[in-house]
Amino acid sequence: MELVSKTIKKHNFFAGPAILPASVLEAAKEAVKDFSGMGLSILEISHRSKEFVAVMDEAFNSTRELLNLSDDYEVLFLTGGASSQFFMSAMNLLPQDGKVGYVNTGTWSTKAIKEAKQFGTVEEIASSKDKNFSYIPKGYNIDEKLAYLHLTSNNTISGTQMHEWPDTKVPFVCDMSSDIFSRPLDIDRYGMIYAGAQKNLGPAGTTLVIIRKDMLGKVKRQIPTMLDYNTHISKASSFNTPPVYPIYVCMLTMRWLKANGGVAGMEVKNKEKAAILYNEIDRNSLFKGAAATEDRSLMNVTFVMNNTDLEDSFMTACTEAGCLGVKGHRSVGGFRASIYNAMPKESVQVLVDVMKDFESKKG
Amino acid sequence: MELVSKTIKKHNFFAGPAILPASVLEAAKEAVKDFSGMGLSILEISHRSKEFVAVMDEAFNSTRELLNLSDDYEVLFLTGGASSQFFMSAMNLLPQDGKVGYVNTGTWSTKAIKEAKQFGTVEEIASSKDKNFSYIPKGYNIDEKLAYLHLTSNNTISGTQMHEWPDTKVPFVCDMSSDIFSRPLDIDRYGMIYAGAQKNLGPAGTTLVIIRKDMLGKVKRQIPTMLDYNTHISKASSFNTPPVYPIYVCMLTMRWLKANGGVAGMEVKNKEKAAILYNEIDRNSLFKGAAATEDRSLMNVTFVMNNTDLEDSFMTACTEAGCLGVKGHRSVGGFRASIYNAMPKESVQVLVDVMKDFESKKG
Repeated sequence: MELVSKTIKKHNFFAGPAILPASVLEAAKEAVKDFSGMGLSILEISHRSKEFVAVMDEAFNSTRELLNLSDDYEVLFLTGGASSQFFMSAMNLLPQDGKVGYVNTGTWSTKAIKEAKQFGTVEEIASSKDKNFSYIPKGYNIDEKLAYLHLTSNNTISGTQMHEWPDTKVPFVCDMSSDIFSRPLDIDRYGMIYAGAQKNLGPAGTTLVIIRKDMLGKVKRQIPTMLDYNTHISKASSFNTPPVYPIYVCMLTMRWLKANGGVAGMEVKNKEKAAILYNEIDRNSLFKGAAATEDRSLMNVTFVMNNTDLEDSFMTACTEAGCLGVKGHRSVGGFRASIYNAMPKESVQVLVDVMKDFESKKG
Repeated sequence: MELVSKTIKKHNFFAGPAILPASVLEAAKEAVKDFSGMGLSILEISHRSKEFVAVMDEAFNSTRELLNLSDDYEVLFLTGGASSQFFMSAMNLLPQDGKVGYVNTGTWSTKAIKEAKQFGTVEEIASSKDKNFSYIPKGYNIDEKLAYLHLTSNNTISGTQMHEWPDTKVPFVCDMSSDIFSRPLDIDRYGMIYAGAQKNLGPAGTTLVIIRKDMLGKVKRQIPTMLDYNTHISKASSFNTPPVYPIYVCMLTMRWLKANGGVAGMEVKNKEKAAILYNEIDRNSLFKGAAATEDRSLMNVTFVMNNTDLEDSFMTACTEAGCLGVKGHRSVGGFRASIYNAMPKESVQVLVDVMKDFESKKG
C-alpha cells in the first residue's frame, strides 16, 4: 500500500500548514535555487538587498489591493503566529482602564481571552462552549463603550465560520488565520486583523497584521521594542531581520490570488467547493456534518460517521485515494477536510468519490 | 557589465542572511518540490506530521551533539530573532530584585541592554564604545552576585569577536547569532545561548535558544504564554506552529556541519580562511583592518582603505568579480567580508585576488 500511495497524486486536506497553489510552489522552488537572477538562493541574501525589498513592497501592496485598504491601515509581516497576537493585540490596544469584549467560538478564542486578561478588563460577551463550539453565537448585547470586540472569523477545529457580523460600531479585532483572503470584507468595521500565514496565505513562519492607525496610541504601559506595533510600522516590518522566505511565498500566493479573481473570485470558488462536499455529507447515509448548518465553514469541513466503527476503514480509503490530512481534531473526532483557497475543485471531487464508493461498499 | 556579472559565479559575502552550503540549498530546493516522499511540498504539510516531527527531533539532537549538551540544557527553536531574545532573556531570567551585568561591544549589545532594563537592575560593566566598538573590553571587575553576565560573542558590524572569556563563576547569557557553531565552547560556563539563524545556521525565520534548566524558575512576574521559555520547553517548540521550513534548513545545515568535522572542524577552516584575508589586508598597501588585531572576528572581516577616494572603484571591482555584499556597515564604513562556516576558501581567495589586482592597478 505504501508503494502504491507514493505514486498516485496527493490531495492535501491538512488544516495547516496547508495546501499552496502549484504555481506558487514552482516559483518558490526556483527561488531557492536562484533568486531574481542574483546567482544566489533567496535563503542566503540580505533582507536589505534591493531584490528582497521589492518583495516586501509587493507583499504590502498586494495586501492593500486585495482587501481594498485605505491609508488609515498599516500592514505588517511579523513572526510568532496568531498565538503571539493573542497577547500583543491586548498589550498594544487595551488601555489599563478600558474594557474589551470577546466572542468565544473555540480553542483559539479561548486562548486569546486568557492572554488578553493580563492587560485589562476582558468581558466574554458570548460563547458557544455549551455545545462544544459547534455553532456561532448570535444576538448578544454589545456594550458600545468597548475598546474593541474580538472575533475569530473561522474556527478550524469545529468547522464553523462567521457568515454575518455583529451589529455594532465597536471596531472588530479579528483572528482571520484560517480564512484570510477567502472572501470580500467590509473593511471599515475592522480595527485590526491578524492571521498566521500557514493556512490560507503561505507557509508557516510569518503572521500578517493589519491595523487601523486610530487603534494605536491609547495605552500607556511599557512595551518591549519588538512587541510594539509602532516599532514595526516605523520600519516597514524590517526593524530586525524579517522571515525572508515565508514572506516571499506569501507574496507569491497573493500574486496568484490577484491573477485568480482576488477575494471575490475566491469566494465564488470556495462556495462552490464547499457545496460539493457538504451536499455529499448531507446525502450520504454514512456521514453527518459536525457543525450547525448555518455556521458551516467554507474552509474546514468537519463531519462524523453515524457508525464510528467504520472510521478507521474510511480513513484508510481516503489515504489509498491520496487524500491526506482528513483526520478530525481529537476534540471533535471524525473527519475534517480543509479546502482552503488553493484547493482545486477536482481534489474535493476525489474525496466525494471516496465517500460515495465507501457508502456503496459499506452502506 | 550587468550581463557579464550574471553569468559568473557569485561569492556571497553578505553579513546576514548569509551564505549556506551548496548541498544544503540543493536539499532545501528538493523539499519544496516533494518532501520526504510525501508527494507534497514541505511548505504545505502539517507540523504534526511524522515526517516533520522527525525533522524537529533531528534538529534538537544535532544541536545537542554539536555543542555536547548535557541533559541540564534545553534546546528551543523560536521566532522573533535575537532582537526578541534581548527582552525575553531578561523577562525570564532577571529577578525583580536581582542584578545582571552586560558587556557592551556594539549595536546589538546596546539594544540588549536597553530591553533588559525594563525588567530589573542592569549594570553595564564594560564597554568599548569609546573607540566605536573596535575592540573587546578586558580586565573588568565582575560582581559574583550577578544573576548572569550578558555577552555578545561576535559583533558583525565592527568585526570583533571574543577569543577569551571572562574569569568568573557567573553564568554567561550569550548572543551568538553570528558565530554559533563556528568553534568549540566550554559549554558549562553558559546559562543561556541564543542565535538568530540567519548568519551561521540557516535562513531567516527561526532563533535557536539553548538554556540551562537551573536558570529558570527565579522570576515571579506574569509572562504571556508565548514569551515564557517553559511553554516552549514543555511542548518541544511546537506549542504553536513552528517556522517549519526555516527549521528544516537549519537541520540540513547541522547535518552538513556534522559531516564536515563539527565545530572543531569548522574552527580549523575558519581560522585558515580568516588568516588568508587578514594577511592580505595587512600586506596590501591600500587597505587596513578596522578592528583591534587581537579581537579580529573570524566571521566578519572589516577593513577600510587608506585612500577613501578609491572605495567606489574597489567596490565595483568586487562586484565585477562576483563578490557580493562586501560593503561595510555605514557606522564603520569601508568594507566587510562575512566568511561564515559555509564560505569556501576558494571564494575568500577570489576576494584576495581582487585586492591584489586592485593594488597592482591603483597602488
